[in-house]
Amino acid sequence: MSFPWPDPGTPLADVITPMPVIDEARVAANIAAVQAHMDKIGLLARPHVKTHKLPHLARAQIAAGAIGITCQKLTEAEVFADVGLDDILITYNILGAARLRRLAALNTRIDLTVVADSAEVVAGLATAGTVDRPLRVLVECDTGANRCGVTTPDQALALAQRIAAHPTLRFHGIMTYPAKGGVAEVEAFFRQTMGLLAAAGLDCPVRSAGGSPHIWQAGGMPSATEYRAGTCIYNDRAQVRAGACTLDDLALSVQVTVVSRPTPDRAVLDAGSKALTNDLSGFDTFGALAEYPEARIVSLSEEHAVVDLSACATRPAIGEIVHVLPNHVCPVTNLFDRVVFHQGGVVTRVVPVAARGTVW
Amino acid sequence: MSFPWPDPGTPLADVITPMPVIDEARVAANIAAVQAHMDKIGLLARPHVKTHKLPHLARAQIAAGAIGITCQKLTEAEVFADVGLDDILITYNILGAARLRRLAALNTRIDLTVVADSAEVVAGLATAGTVDRPLRVLVECDTGANRCGVTTPDQALALAQRIAAHPTLRFHGIMTYPAKGGVAEVEAFFRQTMGLLAAAGLDCPVRSAGGSPHIWQAGGMPSATEYRAGTCIYNDRAQVRAGACTLDDLALSVQVTVVSRPTPDRAVLDAGSKALTNDLSGFDTFGALAEYPEARIVSLSEEHAVVDLSACATRPAIGEIVHVLPNHVCPVTNLFDRVVFHQGGVVTRVVPVAARGTVW
Repeated sequence: MSFPWPDPGTPLADVITPMPVIDEARVAANIAAVQAHMDKIGLLARPHVKTHKLPHLARAQIAAGAIGITCQKLTEAEVFADVGLDDILITYNILGAARLRRLAALNTRIDLTVVADSAEVVAGLATAGTVDRPLRVLVECDTGANRCGVTTPDQALALAQRIAAHPTLRFHGIMTYPAKGGVAEVEAFFRQTMGLLAAAGLDCPVRSAGGSPHIWQAGGMPSATEYRAGTCIYNDRAQVRAGACTLDDLALSVQVTVVSRPTPDRAVLDAGSKALTNDLSGFDTFGALAEYPEARIVSLSEEHAVVDLSACATRPAIGEIVHVLPNHVCPVTNLFDRVVFHQGGVVTRVVPVAARGTVW
Repeated sequence: MSFPWPDPGTPLADVITPMPVIDEARVAANIAAVQAHMDKIGLLARPHVKTHKLPHLARAQIAAGAIGITCQKLTEAEVFADVGLDDILITYNILGAARLRRLAALNTRIDLTVVADSAEVVAGLATAGTVDRPLRVLVECDTGANRCGVTTPDQALALAQRIAAHPTLRFHGIMTYPAKGGVAEVEAFFRQTMGLLAAAGLDCPVRSAGGSPHIWQAGGMPSATEYRAGTCIYNDRAQVRAGACTLDDLALSVQVTVVSRPTPDRAVLDAGSKALTNDLSGFDTFGALAEYPEARIVSLSEEHAVVDLSACATRPAIGEIVHVLPNHVCPVTNLFDRVVFHQGGVVTRVVPVAARGTVW
């Protein structure tokens, strides 16, 4: 039996649950606000599409003024290349013969840039470019996030020189995913590295920073040339906590149904970790209820959310439709094959999440 | 470009990462051990398929002696009905006109049983059965898990009487998902409720308990007639912690690649929350590394796992293939379109996760 996807014009309240529902006007406003900010501070925008995974939103970001997109994995980039996005940065170490063969194929058909933080990764990448069409590589730098990346400007220089020595690669610049609020650390690392590179005679046209939580502080990195941010297209509770937006800027919520009210203080929703994710992001609740701000989602099973209503003056009834505001929106959209867009409470379109599950 | 799925006979080490890889022999042994235990203690087995979501494993469980399967959502049950599973219990309150229409259709083609914990749910279910083919309903009971379920035997009796009063429904028994280790609480609740039902002249043929962590204590519930368990087909770290299995019984791991070694004490894996989930299940690490038991996965981004190697005597190299043992296996399989089975390190088959994403 086919799934009961709503037709355009359907009232939002009639949409099946659990379902991510996305406000068209807020998405458009978020795209415009980010691009206006980037234009104002003189950074090129390269939005990270891992948040939405949707071709039509990537195109909207390009139309607003973005120079290209950022993907986190090779197969994610392939999905977007297949629908016409032709300038893609993959901010991930790509390793292994099978992946490198596909990377080589992708490099023949779009303007592709990748990253590396070790000699091992560079050696693999060198097999994916050609002398006629070198693969562009940025050196990933760790500016305090303690994830990937070379940890000193000296290491960045050494890896850049190694990249530049390969005729099938082109050293194209440096990138970082900063720690929370670490704008000053990024600027210091970039400036020192640029000095070392210049002294060594290496051009460094791209200095790529990113991250939604501190996007409004991005002007504090005059050495950066481009900015990658994903979450800010939808926003979420972590963005509100970071001071990067208000609740009115949240474009995505998960529409759910109250399926049980076993006690006066407890409600159960038809959405668990397989719809909302277990991502606490440092909060003490697995998301907030838009209609009942005092409610707390205290535990998740795979298909149930248990809600503590003890602080709520009014309380939902069995069968009532409510909306969960995610702590972290990016992994939520990855759980659904399709998402529903709406305008003013009326469905506008149902869109396949084209790059869902592209973790390879 | 099509995805590079491995052919049967491929060495496991050549399988793309990240990828759940499942040991055929351990799955078979886990199915057999659970069924032998159920036979020994005189409980009917009704495995919960939400863990594997795979038709061929549901059929293997039936072949071993299970009387039917348990599903958590309506669309999950539809997937299994479509491939021939004909005795299904859906342990979830089903609400809303669209869902109830589909439930009515499903009830015409398989032996279907559902649950209810409120008058509102019963009223809806009554529209999905017919006088000629009543829908079978169990009363869900809360025996300490604080999720769904009536909270007293008196409430169970009242709801059973309400179900029995509907000519389109048949009261068929009681079910519970117990709190951790709460075998005694289940037995007490079931026994009291059975007494009340008998006094009221209501037959209660099914008394359904479940849960993998305390499956080996299920003999402590002589009032129960059937048992639902999911995780025990694969097992995971939470099962080991519960004393329900050993590490040698874990049938599923996530094969990953070490993509970075930025410092002596840090490794980064090509699997983050979109491959492993953020499910800590009370642990202080997002899974264990089979090859490096002292390693700790201290943080996850969406596509990165950051591993603390400080306690490891030997340490993995960049490009090395390792295996993550999940804290909680069920939400992991839900993230992947396909999973890879192997026998002795050689791929046997690649199987679509037929019921992935069926949260409706």
